[in-house]
Amino acid sequence: MMCFSDFPIPAHFPNFMHNSLIMDYFRMYADHFQLTKHIRFNTKVLQVKQRSDFSHSGQWDVETEDKDGKKDKHIFDAVLICIGHHCHPNMPLHDFPGINTFTGRYFHSRDYKTPEEWRNKKAIVVGIGNSGGDIAVELSRVTKQVYLSTRRGAWIKYRMSVRGFPLDMLTSRVQSSLLQLLPFGLQCSMAENQMNQRIDHSLYNLKPKHRFFNQHPTVNDELPNRILSGTVMVKPNIRRFQGSSVEFDDGSVVEDIDLVVFATGYKFSFPFLTSQVVSVSENKASLYKYVFPPELDRPTLAIIGLVQPLGSTIPVSEMQARWATRVFKGCVKLPSVSAMLKDIQYKKETMAKRYVTSQRHTIQVDYVAYMDEIAELVGVKPALSRLLLTDPRLGLNVMFGPTTPCQYRLRGPGKWAGARQAILTQWERVAKPMQTRICDEPKAQRSFKWPLILSVTALALAVYVKRKSFPSCIILIFIFNWTMY
Amino acid sequence: MMCFSDFPIPAHFPNFMHNSLIMDYFRMYADHFQLTKHIRFNTKVLQVKQRSDFSHSGQWDVETEDKDGKKDKHIFDAVLICIGHHCHPNMPLHDFPGINTFTGRYFHSRDYKTPEEWRNKKAIVVGIGNSGGDIAVELSRVTKQVYLSTRRGAWIKYRMSVRGFPLDMLTSRVQSSLLQLLPFGLQCSMAENQMNQRIDHSLYNLKPKHRFFNQHPTVNDELPNRILSGTVMVKPNIRRFQGSSVEFDDGSVVEDIDLVVFATGYKFSFPFLTSQVVSVSENKASLYKYVFPPELDRPTLAIIGLVQPLGSTIPVSEMQARWATRVFKGCVKLPSVSAMLKDIQYKKETMAKRYVTSQRHTIQVDYVAYMDEIAELVGVKPALSRLLLTDPRLGLNVMFGPTTPCQYRLRGPGKWAGARQAILTQWERVAKPMQTRICDEPKAQRSFKWPLILSVTALALAVYVKRKSFPSCIILIFIFNWTMY
Repeated sequence: MMCFSDFPIPAHFPNFMHNSLIMDYFRMYADHFQLTKHIRFNTKVLQVKQRSDFSHSGQWDVETEDKDGKKDKHIFDAVLICIGHHCHPNMPLHDFPGINTFTGRYFHSRDYKTPEEWRNKKAIVVGIGNSGGDIAVELSRVTKQVYLSTRRGAWIKYRMSVRGFPLDMLTSRVQSSLLQLLPFGLQCSMAENQMNQRIDHSLYNLKPKHRFFNQHPTVNDELPNRILSGTVMVKPNIRRFQGSSVEFDDGSVVEDIDLVVFATGYKFSFPFLTSQVVSVSENKASLYKYVFPPELDRPTLAIIGLVQPLGSTIPVSEMQARWATRVFKGCVKLPSVSAMLKDIQYKKETMAKRYVTSQRHTIQVDYVAYMDEIAELVGVKPALSRLLLTDPRLGLNVMFGPTTPCQYRLRGPGKWAGARQAILTQWERVAKPMQTRICDEPKAQRSFKWPLILSVTALALAVYVKRKSFPSCIILIFIFNWTMY
Repeated sequence: MMCFSDFPIPAHFPNFMHNSLIMDYFRMYADHFQLTKHIRFNTKVLQVKQRSDFSHSGQWDVETEDKDGKKDKHIFDAVLICIGHHCHPNMPLHDFPGINTFTGRYFHSRDYKTPEEWRNKKAIVVGIGNSGGDIAVELSRVTKQVYLSTRRGAWIKYRMSVRGFPLDMLTSRVQSSLLQLLPFGLQCSMAENQMNQRIDHSLYNLKPKHRFFNQHPTVNDELPNRILSGTVMVKPNIRRFQGSSVEFDDGSVVEDIDLVVFATGYKFSFPFLTSQVVSVSENKASLYKYVFPPELDRPTLAIIGLVQPLGSTIPVSEMQARWATRVFKGCVKLPSVSAMLKDIQYKKETMAKRYVTSQRHTIQVDYVAYMDEIAELVGVKPALSRLLLTDPRLGLNVMFGPTTPCQYRLRGPGKWAGARQAILTQWERVAKPMQTRICDEPKAQRSFKWPLILSVTALALAVYVKRKSFPSCIILIFIFNWTMY
């Protein structure tokens, strides 16, 4: 699910990889496509500026500095900015009165590396996002006590889902579409119900006031167990620090705190760009489909990976890059400035409606919907009905299987001959790394016979009974829940 | 679930406790009942021998040695042997050819303490019992690779069950009884189906050839995730060692192994007793209800805790001790020698039929059934029908709630006035340690309204349609599955 679309991760790599294996994969990719010779490492970009003749050349002046401090100037025809959105640690110390009196150590989650140093100490982790959850769990194995402080609480998702399958392999294109047909509240209730099957969020005191789809989810398989074992205690927001003691919003006080980790997220900015190219305030940037500054005279600058998908970032970034290079080359045209601004405005409003107001929620996208949106522009969106007619086995896998990135290499520019085979063997690659002991049983593989039958029935019914009417909703819920198993 | 029956674990202790908290609890118990003054610490028992006048006095000569090596002789009216069954490490090195050439280190799981020493090394853990699973998981967080070698595979149970409740809180007295009504194969299928919902045991290559209830279960919440992440690789049995390389039964070889942990279980014996008192061979001892040697002239010796319950050992040991002291005092009589031998024989045959042949499976008991069996002899088995009539709230909790040890303090010798309250507040004690952040939602508590209605229906039907007939089975399955949620 997180591979580049024309280069599947080796089958023997585990489903959830150690960072060193991810690095190995990146190196393999670079070797395979002989990219290294095109990359200048250890070089800092100081400035990216439109040339004086930008309005007709579209060119950029780029100033760089190598590791020895030697500066250099270059002219480029186009620029892709791929710094992501985890740029600058966000550390809102002004929200924590008395932090200056705190006698322990504190730092941002980005500076957390290993837990050993904190053996038998007491630590507070601020923030229950993905970093906060992971750090709390890891620290809790060596510390005397970890307190996990959260203002809002969170819905905790498991990456290891039903029957031990990786969660992201279980959401199909059809399922995503069916889900979209349901009213938002119902979508949330279903998801919350599922989350509560694993852990009752009220019992665990994690339950937020907001609904499941109002927030970027926290994925953590081990946190609930640490809470049940008492090594992680969930606490409300911190009210104040005083020396080594910390008071929370409920008036409770914990003493002798040695460490506070602020897992309080990131801010992004583009200091090497002049502000009129891309302006950022409160983690909001105005970009057409999160990629193109809409008001440049020439579309020769693209921001890649400035999205937070409910899914993997790598294939999304790759898709954006495929689009951007097509635009640079003139093969694909951008719409008018006003159309782009309208689209940006629409996306902002949709996001504001759906998500809790927070600088965490300015670049949220749904994986399948966004991939399809960009793929359509590039001309690589899978042609479902044609596939179902000409290659039904593949078509069914594309519709009812996981939306693996290889689906976007079946046609159009950059078509890859190996895509079909990669899709048809996707479940084998899930099983492969675990086949280290002979077990006579046939390996589990998800079939799409029942999802197919049920979905077709549901869609027919949904059309017949009209959207969002009560009975079709019920049937859709049933099917959705069913297809999750 | 693991407390002594008249001394609940403090409510603020977490549901799964660190060993230091369990130690704290033992100390509290000893303080509360002022036991310490009766205990002689740091004293080894060298010999326990029947006195020459044993047939009418029932007395024992006991020889001890204190920590300074000073020996002492005592006469006792009765003896309780409480050394448990994890006495001597079982290390079947003769089953591992070439172990003498192995260049790495190896030891028994009992000698494993912490993982740090094995950072970035490669380790093999032999055996997928509870120790093997736990050690593999812990090692896998620091080692380069862990291989978990198992001949049979195992069904993996989660201690954190549906909705995040502790698993052992979810099995009620009624559920246990209903389960017993089903054919054995069906019981297994239902349990296996439930285990496979969490992880597909075929996909994870853990699936054993034997059925779920044929083996003492392995409880491990984190192992599946480690397998999915590839840090633990499941392997078959070891065929041979050669230097630092290890070959498995499937012919695969792993190199540069630094450590082998033999999590191969324990043997028990009573070297301080003459063999005619209790004879042990292949971990089999002939004891009446696992407590009394049946052929002694006087019943003044009892073995406590020589059982492996599917449940907690502490309340079981306590119940055995309550019975044993009643027998010593003459308040309860043992049956005739022949009746005891018959019961022993019957239990051996039942166990042989049910469990995989292994020295692990010689002292298996089902928690509720065994507790009730001994409680009946002591006179403390809860009087269900009377309770339902006189104190329905309590009666329903006893029938449909978890079978907490306090249920055996409601009546009879050793009756405890606090038992009722302890039972009625058992769910509050589950929630209490997690109430560290205000969350407006009402705390989840399991209700027994539906289990009650359904169970009564099912029992009536089961009686009507006759035991084990098809339709009643179906209904029972339905109810059983339902009550698990």
